Amino acid sequence: KPHIDCITSRRTIRIPGLIDVHVHLREPGASYKEDFATGTAAALAGGFTMVCVMPNTQPAVIDKATLIVVKEIAKKNARCDYALFMGGTEKNFNEIPDLSSLVAGLKLYLNDTFTTLKMNDITMWGKHFEHWPLNVPLCVHAESKTCAAAILVACLHNRPVHICHVSLREEIELIKAAKLKGLPITCEVTPHHLFFTQQDLTWLGQQMGQVRPMLATEDDQNALWENLQVIDCFASDHAPHTKEEKRSDKPPPGFPGLETMLPLFLTAVNDGRLTLDDVVNRLYYNPKKIFNLPDQPNTYVEIDMETEWKVVEDNLFTKCKWSPFGGRTMKGSVCRVVLRGEVAYVDGQVLVPPGFGFDLRELQLRQPFQAPKDSHNSSLEGGRSTPMFGKTKELT
Amino acid sequence: KPHIDCITSRRTIRIPGLIDVHVHLREPGASYKEDFATGTAAALAGGFTMVCVMPNTQPAVIDKATLIVVKEIAKKNARCDYALFMGGTEKNFNEIPDLSSLVAGLKLYLNDTFTTLKMNDITMWGKHFEHWPLNVPLCVHAESKTCAAAILVACLHNRPVHICHVSLREEIELIKAAKLKGLPITCEVTPHHLFFTQQDLTWLGQQMGQVRPMLATEDDQNALWENLQVIDCFASDHAPHTKEEKRSDKPPPGFPGLETMLPLFLTAVNDGRLTLDDVVNRLYYNPKKIFNLPDQPNTYVEIDMETEWKVVEDNLFTKCKWSPFGGRTMKGSVCRVVLRGEVAYVDGQVLVPPGFGFDLRELQLRQPFQAPKDSHNSSLEGGRSTPMFGKTKELT
Ligand SMILES: [Zn+2]
Ligand SMILES: [Zn+2]
Ligand SMILES: [Zn+2]
Ligand SMILES: [Zn+2]
Ligand SMILES: [Zn+2]
Ligand SMILES: [Zn+2]
Ligand SMILES: [Zn+2]
Ligand SMILES: [Zn+2]
Repeated sequence: KPHIDCITSRRTIRIPGLIDVHVHLREPGASYKEDFATGTAAALAGGFTMVCVMPNTQPAVIDKATLIVVKEIAKKNARCDYALFMGGTEKNFNEIPDLSSLVAGLKLYLNDTFTTLKMNDITMWGKHFEHWPLNVPLCVHAESKTCAAAILVACLHNRPVHICHVSLREEIELIKAAKLKGLPITCEVTPHHLFFTQQDLTWLGQQMGQVRPMLATEDDQNALWENLQVIDCFASDHAPHTKEEKRSDKPPPGFPGLETMLPLFLTAVNDGRLTLDDVVNRLYYNPKKIFNLPDQPNTYVEIDMETEWKVVEDNLFTKCKWSPFGGRTMKGSVCRVVLRGEVAYVDGQVLVPPGFGFDLRELQLRQPFQAPKDSHNSSLEGGRSTPMFGKTKELT
Repeated sequence: KPHIDCITSRRTIRIPGLIDVHVHLREPGASYKEDFATGTAAALAGGFTMVCVMPNTQPAVIDKATLIVVKEIAKKNARCDYALFMGGTEKNFNEIPDLSSLVAGLKLYLNDTFTTLKMNDITMWGKHFEHWPLNVPLCVHAESKTCAAAILVACLHNRPVHICHVSLREEIELIKAAKLKGLPITCEVTPHHLFFTQQDLTWLGQQMGQVRPMLATEDDQNALWENLQVIDCFASDHAPHTKEEKRSDKPPPGFPGLETMLPLFLTAVNDGRLTLDDVVNRLYYNPKKIFNLPDQPNTYVEIDMETEWKVVEDNLFTKCKWSPFGGRTMKGSVCRVVLRGEVAYVDGQVLVPPGFGFDLRELQLRQPFQAPKDSHNSSLEGGRSTPMFGKTKELT
């Protein structure tokens, strides 16, 4: 990181330790791309003290045995706190509900993606929507008509659903209408869908530019910005692949994003496109509520809103060492991250070792009656009992 | 037809003049396949005295000028009564609601079909769902996830929708759940999806066997039969193409069906798979209610439940002169059709000329306060005011 000295910086602001509810850390099975140690270092460098980790690893987290194995790996290697998702398959809908208190939530892949977890048959979706506990998040990769279909299935089963990486006008308008109708739908949008369009493929290249959902049109991008109030969360969908893989004949889809997401939004705050409250709501309060994540005592991030700096790919903590935002100038940076009283990151250095991170669900199981600790916005803090679905809370 | 003499037949039954809510008569633009005179002759031979005619002609019925032209053609040539659908496009959602009282309903093509009318963008669907009057049918070609998406859009706009040619387990189960939830969804199923599966492609051939939705699996077929109570209407989706076209490199999808639908169901009644009431509900009472069609005085069909006969393609009235059910033995046939007091069809002969048929919507506009006439089942007869959405009425 370009040696920003935050102590002498003109203006630092303290915000909560942020939450990225959608990251792929590639371990087990592809730790040459990323692993828990490097991915959570990238998280801390990006201002995140909690991440929710996707299950499409090799093996995929679809049963108790694999969950236990991956929990062990995560426990030894994560530097920030985390919760692990389970993946739904055509077969596991009966067994996995018993594991629901141990995981971030259930992830269903309802569209073509870079995974073996795709479920085509709506009847099979229904089994998961029926069996998965109502109070544990159910997240879907569901684009376009599949997004509409997923919302209908949630509606028919009277349950909440969280729509991952919304990218199209038709999706965000549908979600808006669904929320107006009172359906408990929440959603997230990635920085790359907010800051890129398919026009950017001309310089990114068709290979490096591969991502799912694909980069969309300017009209789709405008729809996301116009409907900021409909967007509950920002999430990176941090999905690292090596440069070699991305440049190959069959480039796998996905961008790394943990280290560039917050700076992109801080730059947008500086540009007057949104407020810092808009950002903190979508990277902390709403994710915390929707995913029922605990307080982290003595945890905060110091950001500098003034300094301009350039993304240097070699300086990234992600193992893949590239970013579609490489070379981009940002105004706003992460100075320091304090996690449970420890300085976990400061001025370009990650200071906490692998294993410092906690499994948030295990923590919650050991402290089931944990009271809200953050008095600054008590209406938003309610522990596990009152999830705020379908609303985007504005800080007052 | 194989010279069935109904007078000496063992047992004839009188049923109402039936309604096929989904036929393609190919005029204008492809009258070498079918036209109003031949298509409505096929209707009468099949026991139908009303047909609802799809708008994907050339030109397509998507504006007032074309509607007027096609109404003139229909008026001069139809032998049975009819109503014409309009098609939705990305542009006509503002103009066509004014024409709604003149047409059978609005048809939206939301999936790939043999038409130029496909609408991909869910946002555009919404414009039609919003503007089209609530009390005039809105029908969709929407398969699989698109079916789910269409139901959601209808739900979000608080309006009824009629799902054409349901063919998959996931579709019928979704519609069942939607009805249980109280959503005003209705649907139709074709005879070819009830009596064929993709196994039949081995003898039909991939070319002759092309149809949309494609013939499905045995599991899908079983789901339709298991959920007979969820099926509001049977409809032929009569979609004639010439044998030459069907045998070509790019065979257009579609089967003729008007003349074989009722015999297939009568055979199924004889086989104990459903009752005659099941058939008449789905080919008369429910279509009449859902599509708000008028009484036809002195109109009925005499059927013979006993005689076995074989479908001979050369004897068909449809101009395309073939049927996927050609050669099949049926038990049950149409003996005589009386339409407004005239014998329109008897023992293999159509006796009414082109122009005998009425445009049912024009008729209703001239007789807006028409009272129910059929006392035999008065709870089901209510004129235009009380459409029975989402229920399948059983005759008592
Ligand atoms: Zn269910
Ligand atoms: Zn079950
Ligand atoms: Zn995804
Ligand atoms: Zn992802
Ligand atoms: Zn709308
Ligand atoms: Zn409008
Ligand atoms: Zn169709
Ligand atoms: Zn059709």
